Amino acid sequence: MFGFIGLGQMGLPIALNLLESGRGPVRVHNRTASKAAKLIEKGATLAASPAEVAAPGGIVFTMLSDDRAVEDVVLGEDGILQRLGPEGVHVSMSTIGPATARRLAELHEQRACAYLAAPVFGRPDAAAARKLWICLSGAPGAKARVEPILRHLGQGVFDFGEDAGAAHVAKLAGNFLIGAAMEAIAEAVVLVEKSGVDRVKVIDMLADTLFNCPVYRNYGKAIAADRAAPVGFKLALGRKDLELVLQAAGAVQTPMPLADLVRDRLLAGLAKGRAEMDWSMLSLGAAEDAGLKPAAARRE
Amino acid sequence: MFGFIGLGQMGLPIALNLLESGRGPVRVHNRTASKAAKLIEKGATLAASPAEVAAPGGIVFTMLSDDRAVEDVVLGEDGILQRLGPEGVHVSMSTIGPATARRLAELHEQRACAYLAAPVFGRPDAAAARKLWICLSGAPGAKARVEPILRHLGQGVFDFGEDAGAAHVAKLAGNFLIGAAMEAIAEAVVLVEKSGVDRVKVIDMLADTLFNCPVYRNYGKAIAADRAAPVGFKLALGRKDLELVLQAAGAVQTPMPLADLVRDRLLAGLAKGRAEMDWSMLSLGAAEDAGLKPAAARRE
Amino acid sequence: MFGFIGLGQMGLPIALNLLESGRGPVRVHNRTASKAAKLIEKGATLAASPAEVAAPGGIVFTMLSDDRAVEDVVLGEDGILQRLGPEGVHVSMSTIGPATARRLAELHEQRACAYLAAPVFGRPDAAAARKLWICLSGAPGAKARVEPILRHLGQGVFDFGEDAGAAHVAKLAGNFLIGAAMEAIAEAVVLVEKSGVDRVKVIDMLADTLFNCPVYRNYGKAIAADRAAPVGFKLALGRKDLELVLQAAGAVQTPMPLADLVRDRLLAGLAKGRAEMDWSMLSLGAAEDAGLKPAAARRE
Amino acid sequence: MFGFIGLGQMGLPIALNLLESGRGPVRVHNRTASKAAKLIEKGATLAASPAEVAAPGGIVFTMLSDDRAVEDVVLGEDGILQRLGPEGVHVSMSTIGPATARRLAELHEQRACAYLAAPVFGRPDAAAARKLWICLSGAPGAKARVEPILRHLGQGVFDFGEDAGAAHVAKLAGNFLIGAAMEAIAEAVVLVEKSGVDRVKVIDMLADTLFNCPVYRNYGKAIAADRAAPVGFKLALGRKDLELVLQAAGAVQTPMPLADLVRDRLLAGLAKGRAEMDWSMLSLGAAEDAGLKPAAARRE
Repeated sequence: MFGFIGLGQMGLPIALNLLESGRGPVRVHNRTASKAAKLIEKGATLAASPAEVAAPGGIVFTMLSDDRAVEDVVLGEDGILQRLGPEGVHVSMSTIGPATARRLAELHEQRACAYLAAPVFGRPDAAAARKLWICLSGAPGAKARVEPILRHLGQGVFDFGEDAGAAHVAKLAGNFLIGAAMEAIAEAVVLVEKSGVDRVKVIDMLADTLFNCPVYRNYGKAIAADRAAPVGFKLALGRKDLELVLQAAGAVQTPMPLADLVRDRLLAGLAKGRAEMDWSMLSLGAAEDAGLKPAAARRE
Repeated sequence: MFGFIGLGQMGLPIALNLLESGRGPVRVHNRTASKAAKLIEKGATLAASPAEVAAPGGIVFTMLSDDRAVEDVVLGEDGILQRLGPEGVHVSMSTIGPATARRLAELHEQRACAYLAAPVFGRPDAAAARKLWICLSGAPGAKARVEPILRHLGQGVFDFGEDAGAAHVAKLAGNFLIGAAMEAIAEAVVLVEKSGVDRVKVIDMLADTLFNCPVYRNYGKAIAADRAAPVGFKLALGRKDLELVLQAAGAVQTPMPLADLVRDRLLAGLAKGRAEMDWSMLSLGAAEDAGLKPAAARRE
Repeated sequence: MFGFIGLGQMGLPIALNLLESGRGPVRVHNRTASKAAKLIEKGATLAASPAEVAAPGGIVFTMLSDDRAVEDVVLGEDGILQRLGPEGVHVSMSTIGPATARRLAELHEQRACAYLAAPVFGRPDAAAARKLWICLSGAPGAKARVEPILRHLGQGVFDFGEDAGAAHVAKLAGNFLIGAAMEAIAEAVVLVEKSGVDRVKVIDMLADTLFNCPVYRNYGKAIAADRAAPVGFKLALGRKDLELVLQAAGAVQTPMPLADLVRDRLLAGLAKGRAEMDWSMLSLGAAEDAGLKPAAARRE
Repeated sequence: MFGFIGLGQMGLPIALNLLESGRGPVRVHNRTASKAAKLIEKGATLAASPAEVAAPGGIVFTMLSDDRAVEDVVLGEDGILQRLGPEGVHVSMSTIGPATARRLAELHEQRACAYLAAPVFGRPDAAAARKLWICLSGAPGAKARVEPILRHLGQGVFDFGEDAGAAHVAKLAGNFLIGAAMEAIAEAVVLVEKSGVDRVKVIDMLADTLFNCPVYRNYGKAIAADRAAPVGFKLALGRKDLELVLQAAGAVQTPMPLADLVRDRLLAGLAKGRAEMDWSMLSLGAAEDAGLKPAAARRE
């Protein structure tokens, strides 16, 4: 039996794929229970608390919004840690800070169960299509047990060793690179437009040649076209991730001026009421600084 | 007959390919004449001045280091403009500012010849292998005449319309994106290393998935491995390009804070005596700010 | 009777002045008890725990290094909150975040005692000379009782109303401005020096005219002269304060790019082993970026 | 006889003071001749070209808007250089780059006359009240002749030696510090306001204590009060000065990230149509990034 906690935009399609893999029954929990409807319809059972999804020695997946949510679900009154017990494995797919992960890993170890870091790259449609890229780190035994399942849920699993924080660091580094690429694209697009040159053509050229990869193709073309990307990842979550990047960097005395800049663009986006927009809308910052009124902002 | 002026790291292999294309005789000029040896051996003729490579109504390619060098070669006492005359075409492959290009284009037009902007993406090995990406803009007639030749010299030609500045803007936007990507990678790599995680593994993972494109694969892996990339593009030239980006942006009232950051990294590199290193060594800035002593810097 | 907790560089001279004011007996506590020697010699008594310095309905001053230290001293097992009781006043002079202060104020209120925010501007010598500037906020009754004492300890008290967070915000704003001024001076000094102009003369001129105020006179002249200022405020504490600034700003969705820059300079200082130097040594960042080797850094 | 060229907001009151000093007749020139009316009324004579204000061996003051204007007035067809001749002195009060000044100084020297750098600090009202601070550098003999006059026009003269660029570097450093202080104040004010604290009180406190100097008192209080300062120095000119700072810094390989930030705020101000507002309105940037709608911007 598997437990699955957190049925948001990412958790729901992953849980569905887990269920449909036929590897065993799935028990789910979500703060808003109604989100589980589709899963229950397909055979999952609903648990009233995090603890109830955990079976002694079992495997529980969590996909939650932030460090505190994971801590609550693990350590809270009805948390999974008290139930998981020896041989249990907690597969933590959320994007959280490495310090939190390491602290949790230690607490799991004290109870003879394992915390596996397994954060993912990919937007909701990639989760549904089992096209996620999954970063993995933690205890070898637990990894061996879980990795085949993760391979089913994504298109690739990358192992970063035994440190429970490592996969989270890799995930944060990746999200930082995405944010940085979006800011770079945003500034380039404004320069091009204000220079009287066709911004879509320029970004198309770059995204077809030197930058022929998903981040530039997807975000680049959305930003150049000044159309709001479908909300795959909310601006408010992007901001949270950049704060995690900066916290992790601060903890190891690493200045990251470009991460500051991306975080500030996201913070400005929040201040302007864009928390629920896709995080690629951080690109509005560069446009507005140059006196442009992007369509995406005009729609507000 | 073709003229070719500027036989540096980029100009030389392009001129060779032009010569070997068999489309016509090639006359070359370079400030340091010795660089032409290989070309002469293969049948090119050497001209003592820029003007001498230009035949009335002919085609002259220039690949020079900066705006002033192009202006000198065009407008100087022995410049090409006085010789090129009606129907002549100047194919300007250097990375220069759009304002200079537009001014030059006007002066060409006054003499009934054409300035074609044709800056390229690609390092010297790409130039040699005819794998350049070429941005093109300018007068339609001249473009029609030159485009087949450019297609032979690269793997793709992108037309940005009639504005002589447009292709240069596209080129500057691209170089800015490369510099920004390197700074992002540099910061990410430092965060990863100081967090005790394998920096090569993390960058490999990202460059194999979300960032599976030349810039991240090449520069990303070089930076992560802390090995000096072969000097395909000098740091001093990178700095010059970022100044062009910021000048072009300033001229159209566009703040580009990320371009500022990249320029400052390059400027610091110059101040530390790294002008002749590859411009990917701007990555040393993030490392040194975090108290690391990268191998590339230790070799200094 | 007064209690006083925290006998560091700032707390010790303030406690001495309180003792010498003759307003009543002073009971002190410090983690390292030996620091209390001078006070005990002059009549103070030493308490083994925070709680012991607090008398029901009395006044306790705290001057500690960070939010957590204040929380521990207030809320810990032997914390003051359990003893202070009705009418008691906690005068919190530490530089902490407004969110922590507001949370503590609420907990004090629940016990019918008062949290007064009273952070100070001034280095240790100013504390000794009763030349501090004191920011004050909190409950009116408690303020009326404590203000005369604060007036004795400094040269001016500024009242920011009833919000326990307000005085802390004012203090953070001030420390940010100091850090920003130092970064500005540092960059200006490098520009001047590398331009071949006398840096001491230029800063002297500015600090005698437009910027004729303590921050520019003191820090400006120290930075221009490239001499390490006496360590009045450690770089590690400066970094902590800038993190508080950015946290407070983040909590109210306020991007502060200049605060980012100052924080990054301090973080780089830490990474380079300068935690114990005066925080004005953040100025080394601008110098090193320009390839200079300042005397202050050479002494390392 | 004195010549005076440039009767803008700064030049006019300085020329008036020069005239009223009774040290000799004053001949003036301005592109828009009507601006000279008040001076002519008081006895000055009007010259139709720059050259006409210069008498062989005489003294000519210039107070112009940028490097190019100074170059035109000196080197143009009707420029002063051809007339000034041996012993002539050109007192250059404009804020221009040190490279331009050094080039001009050399050209003056070739004609046996002198270029004196004499840029000033102070807004128009300070010019009128003879309260300017004047930076001076250049040839000793010329300085000895001109310094008494400058002392009459301001409240202090600072000598930076013989390098014609030196006084301009000092001036640029000062203007950079002013811009940096305004950005710092702007960010602090937004933090304070969004934290629910009285921004005027906080800035008043700081400008009465640690920052008790003209820049913080004047600009600080204007920014805190969200009232447009009287336009003493246009935003467009502030931007020009920051570009000069960055050019001078680039020429000596000095990264200045804080100067980048200030320049970008000014550039954004231009992009938003604020060229004619006082340059303290760069403070709107921080406010708008935080989602505030300052009164100064609402008035637009």
